[in-house]
Amino acid sequence: MTRTLDLAVIPGDGIGPEVIGEALTVMRAAVGESLEVRETHYPLGASHYLATGEILSDDTLAALGQHDAILLGAVGGDPRDPTLAGGIIERGLLLKLRFALDHHVNLRPTRLYPGVSSPLASPGDIDFVVVREGTEGPYVGNGGAIRVGTPHEVANETSVNTAYGVERVVRFAFAEAERRRKKLTLVHKTNVLVHAGSLWQRTVDRVAAEHPEVRVDYLHVDATMIFLVTDPARFDVIVTDNLFGDIVTDLAGAVGGGIGIAASGNLDPSGAHPSMFEPVHGSAPDIAGRGIADPTAAILSAALLLRHTGHPEAAERIERAVEADLASRSGAEARSTEAIGASIAAAVRQYS
Amino acid sequence: MTRTLDLAVIPGDGIGPEVIGEALTVMRAAVGESLEVRETHYPLGASHYLATGEILSDDTLAALGQHDAILLGAVGGDPRDPTLAGGIIERGLLLKLRFALDHHVNLRPTRLYPGVSSPLASPGDIDFVVVREGTEGPYVGNGGAIRVGTPHEVANETSVNTAYGVERVVRFAFAEAERRRKKLTLVHKTNVLVHAGSLWQRTVDRVAAEHPEVRVDYLHVDATMIFLVTDPARFDVIVTDNLFGDIVTDLAGAVGGGIGIAASGNLDPSGAHPSMFEPVHGSAPDIAGRGIADPTAAILSAALLLRHTGHPEAAERIERAVEADLASRSGAEARSTEAIGASIAAAVRQYS
Ligand SMILES: CC(C)[C@H](C(=O)O)[C@@H](O)C(=O)O
Ligand SMILES: CC(C)[C@H](C(=O)O)[C@@H](O)C(=O)O
Repeated sequence: MTRTLDLAVIPGDGIGPEVIGEALTVMRAAVGESLEVRETHYPLGASHYLATGEILSDDTLAALGQHDAILLGAVGGDPRDPTLAGGIIERGLLLKLRFALDHHVNLRPTRLYPGVSSPLASPGDIDFVVVREGTEGPYVGNGGAIRVGTPHEVANETSVNTAYGVERVVRFAFAEAERRRKKLTLVHKTNVLVHAGSLWQRTVDRVAAEHPEVRVDYLHVDATMIFLVTDPARFDVIVTDNLFGDIVTDLAGAVGGGIGIAASGNLDPSGAHPSMFEPVHGSAPDIAGRGIADPTAAILSAALLLRHTGHPEAAERIERAVEADLASRSGAEARSTEAIGASIAAAVRQYS
Repeated sequence: MTRTLDLAVIPGDGIGPEVIGEALTVMRAAVGESLEVRETHYPLGASHYLATGEILSDDTLAALGQHDAILLGAVGGDPRDPTLAGGIIERGLLLKLRFALDHHVNLRPTRLYPGVSSPLASPGDIDFVVVREGTEGPYVGNGGAIRVGTPHEVANETSVNTAYGVERVVRFAFAEAERRRKKLTLVHKTNVLVHAGSLWQRTVDRVAAEHPEVRVDYLHVDATMIFLVTDPARFDVIVTDNLFGDIVTDLAGAVGGGIGIAASGNLDPSGAHPSMFEPVHGSAPDIAGRGIADPTAAILSAALLLRHTGHPEAAERIERAVEADLASRSGAEARSTEAIGASIAAAVRQYS
């Protein structure tokens, strides 16, 4: 265990800085004297781009790559701002970091905490994790268009899937299933995307042979939608590609009590690059600056960060405190971002 | 109005023939003496393929193309049967028909009928229609792989989007919005699939200028997942590509009371080819042959068929009868496929 954690912080846009402030407060409370957290803040995001013209320079990228881990709030500006069109911040910053830092595992746990209400009438016992591939699929930017703006325009997007890329994330998912309830579901669309689907299916079959105690099944992505709202308790570990994972995890977050509490980790499990942790939610410009954003997803992302940098006890303290805080919410008055952070930090200190 | 309807029927596999039987009974009741329905049955599907080796011959395809419309039950065999792997029936039959008959509009209405329960705790007033593109996107079969089975395998899938293909389905969606509550939502992933996304967004913007009374908005496909379970009543017309449409409509079906009642039409609105109507559900081999499948989705598909072949009154009679039948179900004992069909047919006759 290191005695210092060299942390890069990207507060980002909108509610990002607000929720990250609370996540850092809770993190410091959770590690106490046992770990020195050295924070370096990076002012990146849509506002930074609009002010400076910089999205992510090579120097900044290289500097970020030197840290032990990255905590990110949310990036993205006003969706109607034409200077931000085409996802330039998302692609130039968020996706660039995921690709450059080889974040091939995008880990997104969903758990319906006691006392949290789900939009589902009978949610059951929701507790699963989506292992989303993070460096391939239709996210690779291998698209293009001809005759743009004419009646003869053709715009293509290519999903790239490699044996190397699929196998490493499938192996991670099986290891995760071994640690959990030993069930793994591959989600894809093998009856239409036959080449990519076949690679994913064969890879899962092959790795499954090394994990005889893990029950393996397969669901088409469309059928997955149905099960996520009729029987989400059936899932333990879902492994899927970048785009399906994007779609599945927003639905998972919603049925699991809302993306206000959904955390995620972009991992390079090899350790060659720092992993990056962020709430699943976006920068929510509509509620930014009012101190009303729920910092729970950012706080749980900080817990994931501590677990994946070798501080599992601190992670557990945060998760227990969040669980207690969530259980106390129902019927109570809405609190400010800061009040929620302070109350979770106080609970964390009690467990120390 | 034609006095005869030259109908091709593909009962298909599993529960397909069971639900189609009831759909035909109800259809006959709805048209009465006013229309002669001439049925030609085509034995196609997984069982037919396993028995004969034929999926869809050129002759059969040509013959199907001569009818006024096609009613399809469901095709697909045992998902674990290796001789059916890689979606050969889905692609060789269902998708081949959609592409060959230029079914560029895949129309999928979702309505939470009174008395029908949704998996959502507070579903609200769900009544929207998804206009899914049917002949482009990642469904075109433009994928491929190299070094298959080796550690150096690369498997690609390409989504093809054309100005021609996008514009015609967007125009259809705006016309649909004009007939409905005048709201249209484009669903895509423009911040990642920038080339295809830009084509879709520009096309919607351009056609929107011709429809000043239609309110237009945009949602990323991932955010759409959240709204479909937290506020599905916000939607009126959704227009989207083939793959996103596949995913969105299964979720829509689920929140709208289950795919047991979800109908769909694969339309060539130009009339050059017959349109094809089918329940959204599959062949459900697990419950096939037991007479317990719900024929409602097939019956509502028959209503869509009648509406799109120029028999709107007959379509309305079926929809009213289904509505009454659904309202009577809650708390009542489960009925057989045949009993549901007979009861809806009887109600239809009363409205005639
Ligand atoms: C902002 C966007 C590029 C991103 C994605 O699609 O991965 C987001 O939706 C997510 O899930 O983290
Ligand atoms: C069977 C499959 C090819 C089909 C599709 O993906 O279009 C089905 O899921 C549907 O939605 O009609």
